[in-house]
Amino acid sequence: MVRDYSATDWLANISVDCVIFGFHENQLKVLLLKFKNTDVWSLSGGFVKSNEDVDQAASRVLFERTGLKDLYLEQFYTFGDVKRNQNAIQQHAKIQEQIGESRIDTSFLSERYISVGYYALVDFSKVNVNLDHMSDQFSWNDIHDIPEMFLDHRAILEKALERLRWSLDQKLLAFNLLAETFTMSELQQVYETILGKKLVRTNFQRKILSMDILVRLEKRFLGGAHKAPYLYRFDAKKAQAYLAQVDL
Amino acid sequence: MVRDYSATDWLANISVDCVIFGFHENQLKVLLLKFKNTDVWSLSGGFVKSNEDVDQAASRVLFERTGLKDLYLEQFYTFGDVKRNQNAIQQHAKIQEQIGESRIDTSFLSERYISVGYYALVDFSKVNVNLDHMSDQFSWNDIHDIPEMFLDHRAILEKALERLRWSLDQKLLAFNLLAETFTMSELQQVYETILGKKLVRTNFQRKILSMDILVRLEKRFLGGAHKAPYLYRFDAKKAQAYLAQVDL
Repeated sequence: MVRDYSATDWLANISVDCVIFGFHENQLKVLLLKFKNTDVWSLSGGFVKSNEDVDQAASRVLFERTGLKDLYLEQFYTFGDVKRNQNAIQQHAKIQEQIGESRIDTSFLSERYISVGYYALVDFSKVNVNLDHMSDQFSWNDIHDIPEMFLDHRAILEKALERLRWSLDQKLLAFNLLAETFTMSELQQVYETILGKKLVRTNFQRKILSMDILVRLEKRFLGGAHKAPYLYRFDAKKAQAYLAQVDL
Repeated sequence: MVRDYSATDWLANISVDCVIFGFHENQLKVLLLKFKNTDVWSLSGGFVKSNEDVDQAASRVLFERTGLKDLYLEQFYTFGDVKRNQNAIQQHAKIQEQIGESRIDTSFLSERYISVGYYALVDFSKVNVNLDHMSDQFSWNDIHDIPEMFLDHRAILEKALERLRWSLDQKLLAFNLLAETFTMSELQQVYETILGKKLVRTNFQRKILSMDILVRLEKRFLGGAHKAPYLYRFDAKKAQAYLAQVDL
């Protein structure tokens, strides 16, 4: 939620909100920022310059917050209800009261914004989070442990999570989160973490193999074990063919 | 693309564009409007009032154009590139030249708009299209036969079509387009029309039955035919269970 008031070329009534999912060793978390001196948390948001694509604005916000570029970033939904604004006016009084002492202009918090939602997927162990000038704390929260959120940011987060889960199959997203070679069990763990539930091993394996998007390599050497698992590699060309016919 | 200049309470820089798909007897078409005295066609667009949800604005635009309410209407993507505007400035000169003679203020055509895209699905045989004051013609075009379009409206149309195809399975959309009871062959025809390709009957049937969302009824009576097809009914409760686990 950073707005540089020295620049005048911001579009009115438009914002972007980035849901930054962090993934590491089978944990899925989300990055939250806390407004100074309050218990109100928010996603990483920002505004759109008049000469900037909305996609570019989202990339910029993500870069400002994480220092990372070229991340997986997907637009998923636009939040345009009037009542977003009504919630803002209520929360604004509270936040203004606390932040206002530091002479930061927060009046924009009570204007109406149509917010274009994006989600990003990062390795949270690699991120050095930069706070904005309205925040005094950040946190990588478990997605089942979300505190009081600014505006409709909880709803935005839930919608992003729903889309992230869709994208596992629709965009074969899981393969962005694995090493170049991996076992079927490692792939299943990524799916289970993002879907938030256990999957039946045989069903999962059948489903993935039926997609025909993997190349099977040698078995992983595990010392004396007889049941060493096969290693697989994701095949981008096969994946393209799969995605081309995924709608039936 | 109607803007009432007597009202001052429109949000700046935000528009909605509705891709109105028309379906009837296995034909899929899209509603296009032609700018007066030009060869430039557009989707049905509009703007957002300051006290109106973006979803409401889309419903209003759809109602103004078709006279229909409570239609299937889904937000699918937001178009926010700066170059939308650059295209507008070029086309604007051409359109202004023609429309300008009728003293309609078209200056807004060269402003930058972030456009929230929606698609609707209607029975085109039931629609009486209302033109807006900038258009002199409408057409239900075959989706493979699209003329020169305003701005990025061709890209918006293609993205809508992609989402419509997704929604066949992801939202079980086809069942909005069928009578209460139907044969497997009728269901397959809806899928084929929207996907724009022939499907293998046995594969299609296996896939649909594996979803477990239908109730099989008696056979359709066809006089003396021995191979009368079964009738099916869509089961909303089963469908809910299916959709709850569709992400695996």
